[in-house]
Amino acid sequence: MNAEILAVGTEILLGDILNTNAQYLSKELAQLGIGVYYQTVVGDNPERLENAIFDAFSRADLVITTGGLGPTADDLTKETGAKYFGKELVLDEKAFNEIKEYFKKTNRTMTENNVKQAYVPEGAKVLYNKNGTAPGIIVEENGKILVMLPGPPKETVPMFEEYVKPFLSSKQDYTLVSRVLRVASIGESKMETLVKDLIENGENPTVAPYAKDNEAILRITAKGKTEEDAIKLIEPVANEIYSRLGNAIYGEGDEELHFVVAKMLIERNLTIATSESCTGGLLAGTLIDYPGISKVFMDGVVSYSNEAKMKRLGVSEESLKKYGAVSYQVAEEMAMGIAKTSGTNVGISTTGIAGPDGGTEEKPVGLVYVGLCINGKVKSKELRLVGNRERIRRKAVYSALNWLRKELLEID
Amino acid sequence: MNAEILAVGTEILLGDILNTNAQYLSKELAQLGIGVYYQTVVGDNPERLENAIFDAFSRADLVITTGGLGPTADDLTKETGAKYFGKELVLDEKAFNEIKEYFKKTNRTMTENNVKQAYVPEGAKVLYNKNGTAPGIIVEENGKILVMLPGPPKETVPMFEEYVKPFLSSKQDYTLVSRVLRVASIGESKMETLVKDLIENGENPTVAPYAKDNEAILRITAKGKTEEDAIKLIEPVANEIYSRLGNAIYGEGDEELHFVVAKMLIERNLTIATSESCTGGLLAGTLIDYPGISKVFMDGVVSYSNEAKMKRLGVSEESLKKYGAVSYQVAEEMAMGIAKTSGTNVGISTTGIAGPDGGTEEKPVGLVYVGLCINGKVKSKELRLVGNRERIRRKAVYSALNWLRKELLEID
Repeated sequence: MNAEILAVGTEILLGDILNTNAQYLSKELAQLGIGVYYQTVVGDNPERLENAIFDAFSRADLVITTGGLGPTADDLTKETGAKYFGKELVLDEKAFNEIKEYFKKTNRTMTENNVKQAYVPEGAKVLYNKNGTAPGIIVEENGKILVMLPGPPKETVPMFEEYVKPFLSSKQDYTLVSRVLRVASIGESKMETLVKDLIENGENPTVAPYAKDNEAILRITAKGKTEEDAIKLIEPVANEIYSRLGNAIYGEGDEELHFVVAKMLIERNLTIATSESCTGGLLAGTLIDYPGISKVFMDGVVSYSNEAKMKRLGVSEESLKKYGAVSYQVAEEMAMGIAKTSGTNVGISTTGIAGPDGGTEEKPVGLVYVGLCINGKVKSKELRLVGNRERIRRKAVYSALNWLRKELLEID
Repeated sequence: MNAEILAVGTEILLGDILNTNAQYLSKELAQLGIGVYYQTVVGDNPERLENAIFDAFSRADLVITTGGLGPTADDLTKETGAKYFGKELVLDEKAFNEIKEYFKKTNRTMTENNVKQAYVPEGAKVLYNKNGTAPGIIVEENGKILVMLPGPPKETVPMFEEYVKPFLSSKQDYTLVSRVLRVASIGESKMETLVKDLIENGENPTVAPYAKDNEAILRITAKGKTEEDAIKLIEPVANEIYSRLGNAIYGEGDEELHFVVAKMLIERNLTIATSESCTGGLLAGTLIDYPGISKVFMDGVVSYSNEAKMKRLGVSEESLKKYGAVSYQVAEEMAMGIAKTSGTNVGISTTGIAGPDGGTEEKPVGLVYVGLCINGKVKSKELRLVGNRERIRRKAVYSALNWLRKELLEID
């Protein structure tokens, strides 16, 4: 089976949007052993959209479209897909009700436009959308498969995962299994050097590195007759990588660093409070992403001004005058101060210069101190970060969490 | 003139690389008033590459390719391009010398493969590469233009800027100007209903709607002999949209909501502090994205537990017992409490149920209260949001900021 990926949307052709769906879908299809020979983007123009779909089916068995499922007059993907298969569009009751519910729940009025979204090609498999109003669609006939997904990646990705991936997997006669190792602490190129031979020589399993914001992942993929066979092939390779990378590996699968840290705190029954300056609430916000964090996260302060640092955390005026807000001394006082005033086991702090202004020769943009107080014992760490304001703040949050993780590994 | 963008490279079809060149080139061509009707990606396969180039020229006057100019046997773009025009490949002496120089400078040996890179279609305009070895090429004949650029963006972008942009500009006899209006408060489909006729009937200017996370934008684009002419055409249409959408429009161009709100606070000399529960630091974190926010942002509290609400903000135990943490009463006490304890003009609060757990029939997931205290006067707002935990938290932040914006509009 070979595939073509067709993104629909004039905004992509205008360069307003980066077509990340194409990369995501291509990667997923590669994992499923399905070759992608073309990726195409066409605008919200009925004639060109029709040509694109017909052309795609002239050279591929599987066509996956993204976009054009919205409520406006420009959204024509379903109509054109139905036309290819010679089908009518019919109302899907469940989709209609879900759309109504969605508007009711958000106290908004459903317009006539939105009703359009509940129409699907007759006989199609409907993929209900948990993250938006437009349902997706699979039509399969005469050896041709058309999958139509919404455009926004936050809808495309979950829908593909939930419906399309299992559907396509069932059509393959072998199984591909992947295991993802998540690596903090080392840059992508250093990690690659440590496992270079495994990446270059791996045939079955293969080992593929991917860079992400602030971290890297290693994806081990094996092909087997059954899932168990594939899992058995992966195990020795995963063990080898663990032995080389040690606790630079913080977790597996989809579980991101902050979730791992949240769980570690809960397992160890350690309450935590945060005191942030330059990261401005992002550290608390990141931890609070974890559902159930209320078991351990008690309190946080965004002590952006010196007054707030003194008043809420008890940081001494003397330290601020003598060392400046961006210093390891103040970071430590902030960490101790928040733990004390909140009554938590752990206090963590950040203070730094996120930029673009505020840097000096002595204290440049990107200089950030992290303070950590665990059960009364306090330490600090100096970070030298590069990038713009947003990048420095996010990198500081990540580094603070990773440092906390490594400290918690020492505690049972 | 209309265009097609064709990226060549199997690594894109495998999902290993994100095709950012397509977005960059599309944006540049839109600015030049050249319509892009298709974007295509094809692999390093001679037959499919040839089909792709011939297909592209069957529907476009200008075809821009990226990739496939490397030294390996897989790199076939030039050969195929030359074939389309029925031209031979000839050695370009200058390109050959530059490649030799490049290898000399980097202490590397030039291989036979690299000599291949110095061959160009006979009569082509050669675009010498300051950032890599492969020169680009422009071939123009019989109303068809082929531009071939290297794949790596750090080579593609400068080469386009230096050679291709001036070349294409000289062929246009009009200018396109766009003006973007940013719309909060209304869903994409409701906004469309209000300006439906302008979207459907607009010819010059055109009005195009785009959905974004939590907001929508309207792009007005006019074509004129000069930039001034185009701007004059846009003005009445923009005014008409403002008269219909009022202060649902929060800004123009690239400036996002939180930047607009930050500026409004600074202009009005109003200091602000935040007290967050379910949004957990994201509201503070979002405002702090604005460089220079330290002029007005003083302090923030992430009062996740009831104890923190009482201790840091002075929320009364009685209110928490009687109404619960998620109530308009507590939201108002939080807003007043943070303004008072921080000594700021404005206090803003959030308290709600982000999910996935914690909801009841009476207080479901997605219920969020926002409190606002401006110079001692306090009010609150109830939100009913849908989505997963992350989406609810981000939507709450957006809604809180938008409400603050509208209140600030009433203050000079």
